[in-house]
Amino acid sequence: MTETHPSFASWLSSCQTGLDGEIFRHDGHSEHHYPLVIQYEDTDAGGITYHASYINFAERARSAWLRLAGFSLSDWLSERNQGFIIHKLEAEYKTPSTLHDRMAVCTSVDVLKRASCVLRQNIYHENGHISARVIVHGAWVDVTSGPKAFPPQLSEIIALFHQDQ
Amino acid sequence: MTETHPSFASWLSSCQTGLDGEIFRHDGHSEHHYPLVIQYEDTDAGGITYHASYINFAERARSAWLRLAGFSLSDWLSERNQGFIIHKLEAEYKTPSTLHDRMAVCTSVDVLKRASCVLRQNIYHENGHISARVIVHGAWVDVTSGPKAFPPQLSEIIALFHQDQ
Amino acid sequence: MTETHPSFASWLSSCQTGLDGEIFRHDGHSEHHYPLVIQYEDTDAGGITYHASYINFAERARSAWLRLAGFSLSDWLSERNQGFIIHKLEAEYKTPSTLHDRMAVCTSVDVLKRASCVLRQNIYHENGHISARVIVHGAWVDVTSGPKAFPPQLSEIIALFHQDQ
Amino acid sequence: MTETHPSFASWLSSCQTGLDGEIFRHDGHSEHHYPLVIQYEDTDAGGITYHASYINFAERARSAWLRLAGFSLSDWLSERNQGFIIHKLEAEYKTPSTLHDRMAVCTSVDVLKRASCVLRQNIYHENGHISARVIVHGAWVDVTSGPKAFPPQLSEIIALFHQDQ
Repeated sequence: MTETHPSFASWLSSCQTGLDGEIFRHDGHSEHHYPLVIQYEDTDAGGITYHASYINFAERARSAWLRLAGFSLSDWLSERNQGFIIHKLEAEYKTPSTLHDRMAVCTSVDVLKRASCVLRQNIYHENGHISARVIVHGAWVDVTSGPKAFPPQLSEIIALFHQDQ
Repeated sequence: MTETHPSFASWLSSCQTGLDGEIFRHDGHSEHHYPLVIQYEDTDAGGITYHASYINFAERARSAWLRLAGFSLSDWLSERNQGFIIHKLEAEYKTPSTLHDRMAVCTSVDVLKRASCVLRQNIYHENGHISARVIVHGAWVDVTSGPKAFPPQLSEIIALFHQDQ
Repeated sequence: MTETHPSFASWLSSCQTGLDGEIFRHDGHSEHHYPLVIQYEDTDAGGITYHASYINFAERARSAWLRLAGFSLSDWLSERNQGFIIHKLEAEYKTPSTLHDRMAVCTSVDVLKRASCVLRQNIYHENGHISARVIVHGAWVDVTSGPKAFPPQLSEIIALFHQDQ
Repeated sequence: MTETHPSFASWLSSCQTGLDGEIFRHDGHSEHHYPLVIQYEDTDAGGITYHASYINFAERARSAWLRLAGFSLSDWLSERNQGFIIHKLEAEYKTPSTLHDRMAVCTSVDVLKRASCVLRQNIYHENGHISARVIVHGAWVDVTSGPKAFPPQLSEIIALFHQDQ
């Protein structure tokens, strides 16, 4: 058996929804849904999901959201030395989840400014209850020179997910 | 907006392949393919995937494999106090992977005995190269009384993935 | 060479300050200092400490604080089925830290009620700058019946670390 | 209260043994002992330490060992673009450990070649029993040009920990 396996790229494409989630229209704005399963590594000796794991889930969902919307954080970092940083986050824990539960992270945008934004990420259990709410304050930076306006392409993507109230 | 969201169970069902992977026939035995994306949490300051993250990937794939094959580890643990333990593992690292790469863990069975087995888990990059090989020696135990023969249902599942040479 | 090594208990006792930190009096209340080193597993491909790692650092410090103050969370959980749960947390990120930096988590108490409390955990870099502030809202629960007053022994410990303003 | 805290560098120095462990002579070679406490993040829903956490413990011990022996991996990486990579690891699991147990990782060297080495890392429980054995095959590389002989300073450090049989 050879060390290479020819068909992974095409098979992985067929897993798109599971890997990067899906975008839905909802109340006049877009919302990103990201699916995941609670793994052993996410739980702790208390028998439920460890509280910091939800912060990881929110980060996986943000990466998946931008990949799916067509914005490559890795290219911007390697080619232009620019990227997101997190200034602040708040997490509220509602209902615990347990090993092998299926969950969905729903991401939308609360505030969009020239160089920063506030994201709202609700983490739902398969049974429809909310497990955690995460609010993330992020800003765009040039790694060497500091805060910088969002690239227009990114700003347009974020605007689509903005809930105007 | 209410704290519950009605449609997650059905949406999560549609993500099945991404969440639990897929089973393929290959050379007379079954093989489980589990897809994943390298996340920030999986990388380290060296710029590539942290070596212990591959051990997590292998564990996520084993859980997904048994869920997909219809065996619930969580039910056996909570109802009968029985489960898998890992005695030994070996990992070989071949080609590094980096942030946001798509990977697939391919799981098959090298050895199946009455109460233990050896699993072979190859972790492939989307480009077809192998990133890591993980060999896992597991055994079935009653949590209080120690080693125990596999339940027949589990033994039959494992046998389907056994590569006879 | 035998599989047992006789002297670990005594050697580990000599590492007490490194493992569980130290308690200082400061402005009329006690403050717990917990030391740690940024490890590869704590960093990400951005080259700095991954944001969720600070949530882990805060949890390690809370466990160390109560162990050092003489309160065993594990005994209360196993013998009486009671323990802490986290309702809410807020994290503010100030100055990044990098691989192998030495840090200290300083824990004190902002609010103490009958069955809940708010902890303030500042995470300092060895150079004296603050890297992150974490505010944690916790409550005492009986795992089966729900919210419950703190045990008097625990309430007295928490009170010592309370900053009255 | 100011955002800086003046005394952390000196306080952290006093935690040296807990943070980076200690070097002992044993049977004609040196051995590095690294202490740690099992944290919530290291455990899983099975109630014991998650198997991949031991791979993290071994990595923390290797970093601490070289820091304590005076070799700075971060300087070599940033200034000369050289560092360790892991080719292969084997882990055997003996006795489980649980939340808040104190452990020690004992590191010595089995094989030392011009550009690679094999490390033996035994992870002991405070009670003297061995919890896990980890064997790590590492090599020195120039990140851009590939395998390279160890720097003499590093080679001399590794030789001190070599068990000649």
